[in-house]
Amino acid sequence: MVGGSSNKVDTVHETSIRVNTGSSSTMEIHKVCLPPNKTTFQSIKHNFSEIFFPDDPLHKFKNQKPFTKFLLGLQYFFPIFQWGSDYNLKLLKSDVISGLTIASLAIPQGISYAKLANLPPIIGLYSSFVPPLLYAILGSSRHLGVGPVSIASLVMGSMLREVVSPTAEPILYLKLAFTATFFAGVFQTSLGLLRLGFIIDFLSKPTLIGFTAGAAVIVSLQQLKGMLGIVHFTPKMQIVNVLSSVISTEKEWSWQTVVMGMSFLIFLLATRHISIKKPKLFWISAAAPLTSVILSTILVYVFRAHTSAISTIGHLPKGLNPPSANMLYFSGTHLAIAIKTGIVTGILALTEGVAVGRTFASLRNYQIDGNKEMIAIGVMNMAGSCTSCYVTTGSFSRSAVNFNAGAQTAVSNIVMAATVLITLLFLMPLFYYTPNVILAAIIITAVIGLINYQEAIKFWKVDKYDFMTCLVAFFGVLFLSVQMGLAIAVGVSVLKILMNVTRPTTVVLGNIPGTQIFQNVGRYGDAARVPSFFILAIESPICFANSTYLQERILRWVREEEERIVANKEQDMKTIILDLTAIDLDVSYNFAAVTAIDTNGLEAIVEIRKMLDKRSYKLVLVNPVGQVMEKLESSRTLELFGEKSLYLTVGEAIADMSKRLKIEI
Amino acid sequence: MVGGSSNKVDTVHETSIRVNTGSSSTMEIHKVCLPPNKTTFQSIKHNFSEIFFPDDPLHKFKNQKPFTKFLLGLQYFFPIFQWGSDYNLKLLKSDVISGLTIASLAIPQGISYAKLANLPPIIGLYSSFVPPLLYAILGSSRHLGVGPVSIASLVMGSMLREVVSPTAEPILYLKLAFTATFFAGVFQTSLGLLRLGFIIDFLSKPTLIGFTAGAAVIVSLQQLKGMLGIVHFTPKMQIVNVLSSVISTEKEWSWQTVVMGMSFLIFLLATRHISIKKPKLFWISAAAPLTSVILSTILVYVFRAHTSAISTIGHLPKGLNPPSANMLYFSGTHLAIAIKTGIVTGILALTEGVAVGRTFASLRNYQIDGNKEMIAIGVMNMAGSCTSCYVTTGSFSRSAVNFNAGAQTAVSNIVMAATVLITLLFLMPLFYYTPNVILAAIIITAVIGLINYQEAIKFWKVDKYDFMTCLVAFFGVLFLSVQMGLAIAVGVSVLKILMNVTRPTTVVLGNIPGTQIFQNVGRYGDAARVPSFFILAIESPICFANSTYLQERILRWVREEEERIVANKEQDMKTIILDLTAIDLDVSYNFAAVTAIDTNGLEAIVEIRKMLDKRSYKLVLVNPVGQVMEKLESSRTLELFGEKSLYLTVGEAIADMSKRLKIEI
Repeated sequence: MVGGSSNKVDTVHETSIRVNTGSSSTMEIHKVCLPPNKTTFQSIKHNFSEIFFPDDPLHKFKNQKPFTKFLLGLQYFFPIFQWGSDYNLKLLKSDVISGLTIASLAIPQGISYAKLANLPPIIGLYSSFVPPLLYAILGSSRHLGVGPVSIASLVMGSMLREVVSPTAEPILYLKLAFTATFFAGVFQTSLGLLRLGFIIDFLSKPTLIGFTAGAAVIVSLQQLKGMLGIVHFTPKMQIVNVLSSVISTEKEWSWQTVVMGMSFLIFLLATRHISIKKPKLFWISAAAPLTSVILSTILVYVFRAHTSAISTIGHLPKGLNPPSANMLYFSGTHLAIAIKTGIVTGILALTEGVAVGRTFASLRNYQIDGNKEMIAIGVMNMAGSCTSCYVTTGSFSRSAVNFNAGAQTAVSNIVMAATVLITLLFLMPLFYYTPNVILAAIIITAVIGLINYQEAIKFWKVDKYDFMTCLVAFFGVLFLSVQMGLAIAVGVSVLKILMNVTRPTTVVLGNIPGTQIFQNVGRYGDAARVPSFFILAIESPICFANSTYLQERILRWVREEEERIVANKEQDMKTIILDLTAIDLDVSYNFAAVTAIDTNGLEAIVEIRKMLDKRSYKLVLVNPVGQVMEKLESSRTLELFGEKSLYLTVGEAIADMSKRLKIEI
Repeated sequence: MVGGSSNKVDTVHETSIRVNTGSSSTMEIHKVCLPPNKTTFQSIKHNFSEIFFPDDPLHKFKNQKPFTKFLLGLQYFFPIFQWGSDYNLKLLKSDVISGLTIASLAIPQGISYAKLANLPPIIGLYSSFVPPLLYAILGSSRHLGVGPVSIASLVMGSMLREVVSPTAEPILYLKLAFTATFFAGVFQTSLGLLRLGFIIDFLSKPTLIGFTAGAAVIVSLQQLKGMLGIVHFTPKMQIVNVLSSVISTEKEWSWQTVVMGMSFLIFLLATRHISIKKPKLFWISAAAPLTSVILSTILVYVFRAHTSAISTIGHLPKGLNPPSANMLYFSGTHLAIAIKTGIVTGILALTEGVAVGRTFASLRNYQIDGNKEMIAIGVMNMAGSCTSCYVTTGSFSRSAVNFNAGAQTAVSNIVMAATVLITLLFLMPLFYYTPNVILAAIIITAVIGLINYQEAIKFWKVDKYDFMTCLVAFFGVLFLSVQMGLAIAVGVSVLKILMNVTRPTTVVLGNIPGTQIFQNVGRYGDAARVPSFFILAIESPICFANSTYLQERILRWVREEEERIVANKEQDMKTIILDLTAIDLDVSYNFAAVTAIDTNGLEAIVEIRKMLDKRSYKLVLVNPVGQVMEKLESSRTLELFGEKSLYLTVGEAIADMSKRLKIEI
């Protein structure tokens, strides 16, 4: 088939033709080089491995002994075997320091984020114990600090609260949270195993920046409950509801809470500011939350007779994570929402975890396998859902502190987990007087850092569409809902891709006098149209989404050219050359324009030919790439076009057609 | 900004360098030609008009007097003013003949298709009266035969029956059908007015072929009720339910019905076969349905004493379309399903109408403006919903007969409408004894023609993915539901586009000895790697959906190259050249590979540079196109890269880098 088509392309080979009277260069004519003949199975296999294994994860296993293969496999699934054997005391020292540092952040964060998800504070601590241990064994990042994160907590809280009230039905709510966590884990693991990790790429940066900023505003507004000491707060998340609820409950505001909240908020923001200005002082902002918790607890304890208006955490049960596998919920009316919440929080958790892992890996020059990370995070969440944990992932704030504190391996996560263990076993009564307002202040400080307006300004400068996507995500989250905002922004991003495909560029080419060069006449002033010819180039694959457009656009080009010719009284157009690709063997590159074609595209070409034929123009194709050539052949489009309608280069086409149509050029 | 960047590109301009010792050609160095500087507004305007007005529908209005503009506008919205003035007796004669021919088809089809949508047969006749009249005024196709069509009827029937039983609540069902028709019209008109006509392009040919074949099977199976004379038939559409219902109701089968049905089915299929074999005898199959209706009615009337087992249409009210605007349903529980049904049937009706219009327009060499056709069909359906009509569009079978019978203008639709009018006013009692089985036979004959297995075989030969899409649509419709099958097939088509974008091709380039040509080393055997250099070309826009993939893939290329160098003991790699485009001014083409980049893409480039830097490789970019260049500049990526990292051609990059790094080549 391929051989047959290349014969056809050869039709003008015997003649060596001079084109363009101004030039004295004789054209060298080469044979077009078709791709090696592949069977259907081979090409499917090739496509498959390019889609699912672009990083060739098995390359290490090639040409190895079975035992080495087994060891490598073990190391692949449990990276701890990779770095474990080289572990030494010096590394341990660094890891202990960084582990303790992140523990001091993890404990107040755990309690606060659990509240964000409408869960009991203790769940946040449980979630900072089991998952980090598992990640230390399974994860390939050395700097990821694992635990609950604000965005996933917020999304879980807002999605579940839409169907079940956490105050009216706390047990059902808890069950749904664990179930959602379980499904998040299943979803994450499946993405990794099926090597569909690229799905998280569809959350583009503008989407994420806009979404995160919107969620940060929503979260901060939610904290007004804690900051103002409001008792009866709206369960809704939308900005309008929250603000009207804040105003209507003015009578419930407690001045003691407000004063305490504002003081600590200012303290936390100030420490954050210092750490941003002087990155070496990162430990100031890392230690601030625990300091605030301790200070505020002491204050409330000392003045407990006068601070009854300040609500506190109260009694927390001592002890390790209780098993919760029996609380998973696999049937009933709320299963659908649990699965949906699991998928949405799962994908958000993955996005944060993988992005954070990649960021720090790139700073220390090692690589993260996205699909493997997904399996690690997924397994961690599945196991977490059976041990009273909710959705966890690599947290940006925790990982940054971990990295800055000098973490060397995942052992820092183990140290953190051990610290949380001690807290769980012995220190829980100390939180009795911790005021809720301090948790609100910690959350606000954490999420304010997520509003990345500088990046949004950069989008505006660099790419207006990205800026728009970012705004859509932001306002979608604020005024519709967290998941709607996300969905719309993803839709807008995908729409851009589809738009690019739906509206491919077509350009008119002209000859640069004295050369064999054909350039875009719109861009190169000296490129001149060749009389009697009209040369069009298509710069995209031709497929169902653009075949109608291309038909219309090409006819419009032809019509405009006719009008131009009449207006300028030029020579009539006789032949239309459709340049399908940029292959040219006299020249440096091998870039394909029409890199692919489908059956709709093939029909469009036939249709264009038919329409031009009716207007007595001759249509000539120039240089389809291998794959397109094969399809032109197998669909018998070439037969329809006849022999003298396919050339290797625009130059050859012009030379030969001129001779045949007796056109003087 | 643009000027500044072009200065940077110029950095190697002063030197004229010889590359590649085998060649004696001296490189001419050209300035890269940036696109004319546009303001944000200008470029948005340009993009907007390319997206929404690719066919430049207003070009006729340019440079015209106001009155001419008004006339042209009138002709634009009411094409009847365009051809009306040239109308003559000869045209009328052709139109009367073709109009009568399609009326003979339209009457039995109208009755049958209404039954397919679970509507009273008379609605099908009403729908063949008002809409054709409106289309004659508004439509731009001269050959479209307007009326109810099988696919839209089936989809409406199946979607509405899921929520409301047409036998238990006939009035509500009728209301929903009119409401769905109204929303179909609103949706169609909006698509046309907003110039979003390209949305129907997303129903690719493989999707439509698979979907139509699936629907045809479903429809044919539904006709078993009529063909076998079954009284208690399942209301479900899925193949499994229907077959089990047919078997379980075996006792209800009526042999008289079966005999009559099979005889007429064979007659109809035979006439269809004759017309396919000899297209000149098209009138045989066109007249067959009416002949069958007349013959079978006479038969049942004559033997009425013995044929009580054969169910007949029964009493039909005489008279014109009653108004039905008061039956539209704008609130209540079923509004959502009415809107959904309207959108799905609306889009299917559009797809058929526009495709049929384009097919016959192309045969007679005139053009159809897709967006305008949508407005015409939409208005026709909105008006239809107020005059007791359900969804109508240009029907393939009717239009083919119309075309073959010699129709010249939309007057043939008026003649058809007039004939239907006479039928409605005077002939309704004649249908009293028309057996339902004949309608089933007519439907089966009509839909069997829609199963285009030859096309499916062609997909298999030409494009395996298209074949798969076709199968997905087919089996989706058969085993899930009509709308699910359609949705999944559209998803599969779009997935292919996204896959193409997500996994762009990257190729390694090598130099063809003795030339300045750099070609894909995998494809061109004589292309040789340049020692110390590694040249990669990217063949797609870089955006959020592929930036992570590209990072991974490029690092894998680098790793594989390192391994190859070690294995072959070649000279170490020092510089990696990333070829962003195919612009080369020595050469014939101006095709861009990386035609666009977004903020994710820019970051990916920075990230790749950082990673290569850590491995002490130098990264050099070659020749970004104008738009990409602007973004590299405005995002300050160029600053980061420094001056000597951007070249016009691969040849220049190699020459200059060799000199600077003192590499011998």
